[in-house]
Amino acid sequence: MSEYGEFGLIKHLTEKIELKNSSSQKGVGDDSAVLDYKDKKVLVTTDLLLEGVHFDLTYVPLKHLGYKSAIVNFSDIYAMNGQPKQITVSLGISKRFSVEMLEELYSGIELACQIYGVDIVGGDTTSSLTGLTISITCLGEGEKDKIVFRNGAKENDLICVTGDLGSAYMGLQLLEREKSVFQGQQENIQPDFTGKEYILQRQLKPEAQKNLIETLKEKNILPTAMMDISDGLSSELMHICTQSNVGCRIYEDKIPINLQAVEMAEELSMNIVTSALNGGEDYELLFTVPMDKYEQIIPLENVAIIGHITKPELGLNLVGRQGEEISLKAQGWNSLNEEK
Amino acid sequence: MSEYGEFGLIKHLTEKIELKNSSSQKGVGDDSAVLDYKDKKVLVTTDLLLEGVHFDLTYVPLKHLGYKSAIVNFSDIYAMNGQPKQITVSLGISKRFSVEMLEELYSGIELACQIYGVDIVGGDTTSSLTGLTISITCLGEGEKDKIVFRNGAKENDLICVTGDLGSAYMGLQLLEREKSVFQGQQENIQPDFTGKEYILQRQLKPEAQKNLIETLKEKNILPTAMMDISDGLSSELMHICTQSNVGCRIYEDKIPINLQAVEMAEELSMNIVTSALNGGEDYELLFTVPMDKYEQIIPLENVAIIGHITKPELGLNLVGRQGEEISLKAQGWNSLNEEK
Repeated sequence: MSEYGEFGLIKHLTEKIELKNSSSQKGVGDDSAVLDYKDKKVLVTTDLLLEGVHFDLTYVPLKHLGYKSAIVNFSDIYAMNGQPKQITVSLGISKRFSVEMLEELYSGIELACQIYGVDIVGGDTTSSLTGLTISITCLGEGEKDKIVFRNGAKENDLICVTGDLGSAYMGLQLLEREKSVFQGQQENIQPDFTGKEYILQRQLKPEAQKNLIETLKEKNILPTAMMDISDGLSSELMHICTQSNVGCRIYEDKIPINLQAVEMAEELSMNIVTSALNGGEDYELLFTVPMDKYEQIIPLENVAIIGHITKPELGLNLVGRQGEEISLKAQGWNSLNEEK
Repeated sequence: MSEYGEFGLIKHLTEKIELKNSSSQKGVGDDSAVLDYKDKKVLVTTDLLLEGVHFDLTYVPLKHLGYKSAIVNFSDIYAMNGQPKQITVSLGISKRFSVEMLEELYSGIELACQIYGVDIVGGDTTSSLTGLTISITCLGEGEKDKIVFRNGAKENDLICVTGDLGSAYMGLQLLEREKSVFQGQQENIQPDFTGKEYILQRQLKPEAQKNLIETLKEKNILPTAMMDISDGLSSELMHICTQSNVGCRIYEDKIPINLQAVEMAEELSMNIVTSALNGGEDYELLFTVPMDKYEQIIPLENVAIIGHITKPELGLNLVGRQGEEISLKAQGWNSLNEEK
């Protein structure tokens, strides 16, 4: 690291960046970036990721970590029905990181930015006495009257989710198991992940739901409420229902679950539905639409209707496969809870 | 901490926040904040502060730390000739922090926001395995054609600074000395800081140069280049000269230094000019203006002309009190350098 100072390092990491968006007027290299959003609304979100809390470098490749760090921020902007446009990246780095390792991390961030059309417009690096700290802020644009909040769900609205739930959590369980197996043995045997690629990818290299936002725009569907599923379906439903002052009923057999996640849960003797409800890190979108959009939603690829919004006094309920009603509790992935 | 989860804690810390700026449309509580900058440019800057690297809680009160964490971001926006309008605050918190301690920290952030007219529009809290991590992103507005970068300094421009330099660094030296004295003794004797209040305040509770930006606007003076002095005058001059492709000559006897800083340097047998050049954390503004603005700059309170811009081939020079020329080297406060 000694060949670069703080300025040299951030310059080295960012010097090849070319700005793509017309709203990005000036990027890295001054006291602040300069953006021009003209008549669009500016969306801003931020995420702080700490080693040992949010990621474990014993099994997370740095490039994947960089990619995911960017994606989780893009996901928040899509969840407002917006388009991510710029990020700033601050890194706290301890001595054990080489320039090559930071290049790996940055290459993942850059790849995500390239795929999603986002500019890196600022950032800094600083030394850390402990592990790696990644702080990313994402700015995006939203159109007037098209921004979707969490508080607009109405009685009888359909509850929809993209993709499938619980896979990222099952991927994490697999990685944690292999880590403990690996630590318990002498020889350097590579674990066999055949047939588990999908759940691993969902954990290590998630994607944000750009496609849904584009589809909704094409089809002229405006959700009444939307958020991304980062802490688990139950937790996010709780947010939408609380902020919208409504209740909800979702159906166990409608929750989209991938076969690899089911198999992994069986292998680990875990309940896959519980994992889908509370696992987190799916980065799928949860949204509600008026019931009269049913015919438009049904043909959409990658979107499932899992239930509907009810009166607030009915609470949040899951209807099981035998028709039994179970009250939903948010037990989402919540790092502060771990301290209890 | 167990009484609040992650959501509860951030809600508790932010629930009293009222948005002041018309550009702040939606603050904390959704996937992202929503801002409306209309025909203004959006400025964005971010700072990551790590315990043990950027601050030492053995002598920094949490409220002061919160205040300073906000100020250093505002300072970057003023350095673009902009007005800070919104911040997002992410905190990484270890187990030893109580809710009351976080309230203290937050109260300092809120106080700074109140004084400078800034809204807190987002943020989160997460657990940390180690110390306190503070990540703040600040957004501000700039007027078209009035944003000042680092790259516009021209030959013969006057070099100006606000306030005085080196005081914050001397305040830090004092605190470090008292810390080591305190750690070496058995009894709990409070240090006597009489006559050293100013340098302590400059270190613990710095201010950003809002007044200068307002004065420049009133007087219709647009700097050719500007940046804030966070890493030390030498380092910042290097940035401006490199980016503007110019040289500079500054005069030792023109560098504004406070008497308390001079006295502290003598007490510690340190060179106050070196400290003023390389100390950092002043959060004053360094700017250049065309020579014909001389008559307008001279009457300004709190602004000193310290030299002028030269041809690039002349390099960066300090003219000493005996007329000797000394080549300037940036040795600014640079946390990565400490690792060398």
